[in-house]
Amino acid sequence: MRLGTLEAGGTKMVLSVGNEQKELLEQESMPTEAPEKTIPAMIRWFEARKIEALGIGTFGPVDLNPASPTWGWITSTPKLAWRNTPLLPRLRDALGVPAAIDTDVNAAALAEWRLGAAKGLNSCLYVTIGTGVGAGIVAEGNLVHGLMHPELGHMLLQPRENDPSPKGFCPYHAGCLEGLAAGPAVEKRWGRKARELPEDHEAWELEADYLAQMCVTAVCAFSPEKIILGGGIMQQKHLFPLIRRKTLALLNGYIQAPAILEDIDHYIVEPGLGTRSGAMGALLLALEAVLPRK
Amino acid sequence: MRLGTLEAGGTKMVLSVGNEQKELLEQESMPTEAPEKTIPAMIRWFEARKIEALGIGTFGPVDLNPASPTWGWITSTPKLAWRNTPLLPRLRDALGVPAAIDTDVNAAALAEWRLGAAKGLNSCLYVTIGTGVGAGIVAEGNLVHGLMHPELGHMLLQPRENDPSPKGFCPYHAGCLEGLAAGPAVEKRWGRKARELPEDHEAWELEADYLAQMCVTAVCAFSPEKIILGGGIMQQKHLFPLIRRKTLALLNGYIQAPAILEDIDHYIVEPGLGTRSGAMGALLLALEAVLPRK
Repeated sequence: MRLGTLEAGGTKMVLSVGNEQKELLEQESMPTEAPEKTIPAMIRWFEARKIEALGIGTFGPVDLNPASPTWGWITSTPKLAWRNTPLLPRLRDALGVPAAIDTDVNAAALAEWRLGAAKGLNSCLYVTIGTGVGAGIVAEGNLVHGLMHPELGHMLLQPRENDPSPKGFCPYHAGCLEGLAAGPAVEKRWGRKARELPEDHEAWELEADYLAQMCVTAVCAFSPEKIILGGGIMQQKHLFPLIRRKTLALLNGYIQAPAILEDIDHYIVEPGLGTRSGAMGALLLALEAVLPRK
Repeated sequence: MRLGTLEAGGTKMVLSVGNEQKELLEQESMPTEAPEKTIPAMIRWFEARKIEALGIGTFGPVDLNPASPTWGWITSTPKLAWRNTPLLPRLRDALGVPAAIDTDVNAAALAEWRLGAAKGLNSCLYVTIGTGVGAGIVAEGNLVHGLMHPELGHMLLQPRENDPSPKGFCPYHAGCLEGLAAGPAVEKRWGRKARELPEDHEAWELEADYLAQMCVTAVCAFSPEKIILGGGIMQQKHLFPLIRRKTLALLNGYIQAPAILEDIDHYIVEPGLGTRSGAMGALLLALEAVLPRK
């Protein structure tokens, strides 16, 4: 079976074709221009490859309620040209194939849960820390949508006294995770891109502290069985041991779970699928569009 | 059918008998003394009433993994006499009836979701703010357990500059929810019991701010369709409008959900079952012990 996948991002669209053996066979990337231009280009690409189903992991906000008349629409995005765009309906109707959609981060969480670092568990938290901070959550064997979908980047953290920019850089919130710890925050705070800061720069202790606070609140709030950290910032692999150590220090022995207390190296981890989590998640969504989840 | 319910608390045990019409017929309270004394007393009470199933909502930590050899045991509680006590196995085996167990707050969340303020929804957050802060979460139609169970009281908040005790009073964590906002924290900070503080006392603005921060992080983290606030502190009904206003101010328009933006009076609410959430939850657990959830 030929399954189409779309990772819809604010700057580029990544399209691929895979199969039900969970192999990705071919991939193409195109810039995200106006919908009138980009959507027809995507339709042509998928048409030429005769896909039989489509899975979409997209930037948001997106309407994920299948009972809603605007299901699969991009809604109030700051990317104005894409506001109120029926992304899924237009692709599905033009291609005449079943389609499924979720946020990019929920798709990645789905793939990490089914095939990656959280395989075999009933729950996980997947967080990507890059240009922004996004998260997907699996709880009791289901992707969490709730009222809308997680927007973990805007949870509130405790700004640290040694932070030269303790309010962070989110235009909406003082001291939220994204405003304190996303890539642009690191760059604005220290005047250099994150990847140009040496490993011994004070930036990293602070960054690890904020990400550890996020881990602590996640553990206390919804108790995931695994925390998976990906995205551009987490390419700084030296952050992992720092985050783990600070998470243990902040929890301070209160949560008596052996998975955390005795095995944190396997509790806060890298994505098992590397940079393919998003595409594999879209592939799983395409499969679900054909064979609905039980 | 005669269904027994137990709300196991650190200071008292509340036992009742109900039926499958979700009526509570008879209730008794006994002090929580040593297990060797209290467990036999509870067994005698339930035996005399010929219950056919038992549902337990308990203080924790408690092992909630049905596959574990210590399922239904109270584990590392600071209440030393109850540490490593096989609460469910002892009652179940002595009474010879099927039994189910969850945390007291998960039981309350279950009841509020099935019968109370979140009836008909797929998700909710139930938080009790009293001697401590506890929470139960329903996500995608399931109670969330995860690695252990939520310990929302220990999520981290932003201490406020006008707080005379900005580190709070938790022996484990600086600036966690319970340490900043539970009843004992209010009393220690202001030198008077919460219920003795007049409505115009500055304590309440600060309290509402901390609880609003909790609501904001919950919305961003796992996006519940309803937030239900109960417990002794929330008997101060004037807190509700303050918390709602501060939640909107802190979210600052970022989350474009009509349920929040346009209808927050019905988003952050009192328990629909009043003070009966816990007992009704235990009754639902007893029913599930007889008729397992599909």
